Amino acid sequence: MGLVVQKFGGSSVATAEKYRRVARRIAWKKRQGNDVVVVVSAPGDMTDDLIERARSITDRPSAREMDVLLATGEQISIALLTMALHELGVDAVSLTGPQAGFQTDDHHRAARIVNIDTARIRRELAAGRVVIVAGFQGMDDHGDITTLGRGGSDASAIALAAYLSADQCQIFTDVDGVYSADPRIVPTARRLDEISYDEVLELAAAGAQVMQLRSVELAKQYGVEFEVLSSLAPLPDEGGEERGTKVVAKLSPNNHRIVSGVAVDSKVAHITLLGLPDRPGVAYRAFKALGDARINLDMIVQSAGTGCGNGPTADISFTCARDDLETALEVCNRLLPEFPGARVVYDTDVAKVSIVGSGVASNYGVAARMFEALAEKDINIELITGSEIKISCLVRASRAMEAVRAVHDKFELGDVAPIVQ
Amino acid sequence: MGLVVQKFGGSSVATAEKYRRVARRIAWKKRQGNDVVVVVSAPGDMTDDLIERARSITDRPSAREMDVLLATGEQISIALLTMALHELGVDAVSLTGPQAGFQTDDHHRAARIVNIDTARIRRELAAGRVVIVAGFQGMDDHGDITTLGRGGSDASAIALAAYLSADQCQIFTDVDGVYSADPRIVPTARRLDEISYDEVLELAAAGAQVMQLRSVELAKQYGVEFEVLSSLAPLPDEGGEERGTKVVAKLSPNNHRIVSGVAVDSKVAHITLLGLPDRPGVAYRAFKALGDARINLDMIVQSAGTGCGNGPTADISFTCARDDLETALEVCNRLLPEFPGARVVYDTDVAKVSIVGSGVASNYGVAARMFEALAEKDINIELITGSEIKISCLVRASRAMEAVRAVHDKFELGDVAPIVQ
Repeated sequence: MGLVVQKFGGSSVATAEKYRRVARRIAWKKRQGNDVVVVVSAPGDMTDDLIERARSITDRPSAREMDVLLATGEQISIALLTMALHELGVDAVSLTGPQAGFQTDDHHRAARIVNIDTARIRRELAAGRVVIVAGFQGMDDHGDITTLGRGGSDASAIALAAYLSADQCQIFTDVDGVYSADPRIVPTARRLDEISYDEVLELAAAGAQVMQLRSVELAKQYGVEFEVLSSLAPLPDEGGEERGTKVVAKLSPNNHRIVSGVAVDSKVAHITLLGLPDRPGVAYRAFKALGDARINLDMIVQSAGTGCGNGPTADISFTCARDDLETALEVCNRLLPEFPGARVVYDTDVAKVSIVGSGVASNYGVAARMFEALAEKDINIELITGSEIKISCLVRASRAMEAVRAVHDKFELGDVAPIVQ
Repeated sequence: MGLVVQKFGGSSVATAEKYRRVARRIAWKKRQGNDVVVVVSAPGDMTDDLIERARSITDRPSAREMDVLLATGEQISIALLTMALHELGVDAVSLTGPQAGFQTDDHHRAARIVNIDTARIRRELAAGRVVIVAGFQGMDDHGDITTLGRGGSDASAIALAAYLSADQCQIFTDVDGVYSADPRIVPTARRLDEISYDEVLELAAAGAQVMQLRSVELAKQYGVEFEVLSSLAPLPDEGGEERGTKVVAKLSPNNHRIVSGVAVDSKVAHITLLGLPDRPGVAYRAFKALGDARINLDMIVQSAGTGCGNGPTADISFTCARDDLETALEVCNRLLPEFPGARVVYDTDVAKVSIVGSGVASNYGVAARMFEALAEKDINIELITGSEIKISCLVRASRAMEAVRAVHDKFELGDVAPIVQ
């Protein structure tokens, strides 16, 4: 018993039948004696439909008006879900983002929550009602409707859990938690009972299809622990259990492990600047120019080059999102005239394989074990980078899936007991 | 030059092309040097679509949640219309009903406007913007979304014109004004340049497909004069003229006439209670019971009956909407046992033909002239009733269209000069 915030995404409410199913899940939680606040997204592909309507009018819609338009998706959803609860005999009331007290800055389409005035929600809870809140939206100081950008409904739920000091925050999605690897790649991948914010953040950055980074960052910032659960799982009132992954600040002692998961990112490009002069300021010059072009660099490695008689040279390698490749090459080619003899090469036939775990840095031999796994399969490593809780290797794209499975096996992350630190 | 309130209904904004067309009409008005506030309805059949979504969840949706749901239709419309104006280079901003300051009572689905706080609208106008307001909606004292019920967007526009003391209020619809008769029935029917509130109200009550009664009543109450115009008419920036019907408190001197229009209502039923005892209280008894069943009675006539030896009797005839016939008959049949010898007969093969005009009561012979027109065509009159500005005759349904044309001709309402009083 306590105060529970639940969040249901668009795929959970794509049809009338799905609204009814979500309503039953909520009703069950309420019947357990909880106060329940639900954050819901726009139904199914409504947001795409609304964007299409805008596109039929203009190619460059104003951000403010897009927010007015897009906010209707969640408003439709809260009304329908509330009706579905009424149909089950559950007292419930819908609130738009502004009605629920979400105050944001005025960055339309990517607003940040600055405060939640929870008075109305608390009043409705005190009256015994389930409160259904439109995710993704709020109101700025001018009284204008704002939306929070991608993954905004998760952010709404997590912020609400923080402002309400909720006892539980459940994010229902179409998967039942965070896995040790993508089960489509590694059939033995295991659902993790628990994972830390930092691990989730690194996994997402490493290419795992987990949650929106921003929501996890927000949860970390607010100190809100939440669960990721599947809205497709059997209903509790039909004997289903609530099983998912808890995302927490610090793993509980019985969940400590060296490596939590393996991820792969195939949408990367590898760029190398060859034969740069080996003197201070050259790397700065290159990375400043790339940064100014708003390109996020990921793996960065500098090595002694093979300059032939023109004094010492250095090679600089980095990876970026494949979508940024074209822009990155333009920036590099503009730089080259400053460095006679230098040239740029690139490769898109690569993928990044990463291991993530709180025990990576504090355990000897973790990197070696990863390299061993790859060597055993005769997979060449082209770049290596590491952080406190992550080690990434760039490999041939054609060998990436094999690499993920080999590493997953080597660290025994599958259906066997995890390695306790 | 001045402050203009324009209103565009759902059929005016059914497609992207129509939004663009409406935007050009607005842009032209703004270019003439006016401050422009626009009230817009939900696009095309969106409201029906939303109702269908609710129906797929529940047969008895809560009125409050229906308002949350339905208000999204107009919100989508304001965003799209504002984008279409931006596309034309016109500075514009959208406001939902609550943002525009519409304060209503809490009668969900049929709320009444109690105040409009026009501060935000005036601020946007002062900044040179066209203001696009969602019709049909407002917010009650609890901060809940309300809708105004059928014809609500017209009511929004008229109330806004009143609160803003607008110089002009234009209601754009799919007809270009109020006609002396339905042009589909009377090809020579003439568009009226001007008509009074009372005439429009009586015409609508008489079955003419003009405006929603409530909006005209509101205009009369606020003293807002408005124009009915066609959004299908050629655009002003393509040489089109703004021609419609002005709805005013009092006709201007050069528009005075005895009869303004002829209307027909084919959806009526005629019920007669035969052989009622001719004593005080009997009519009251009958009409009280019908009133309690919420049946609106229209033409009511009492005449001496043909009682056969059971003392004096009376017959009471009345008409009601055909949709109410079944209920009305049930009420009558429940009453009969109180009045031995009485019986009830009904007829649905009837139609009501009415003439409406400010000069009806103050001119001798108007009724006679109407009857003459019908007699000339050998059309039998089954019931007659009259009011200050209206005379109605019940005729056979099969003769109704002929009757309308005969009366329209007799009063020379067609493409010839009107009869000046």
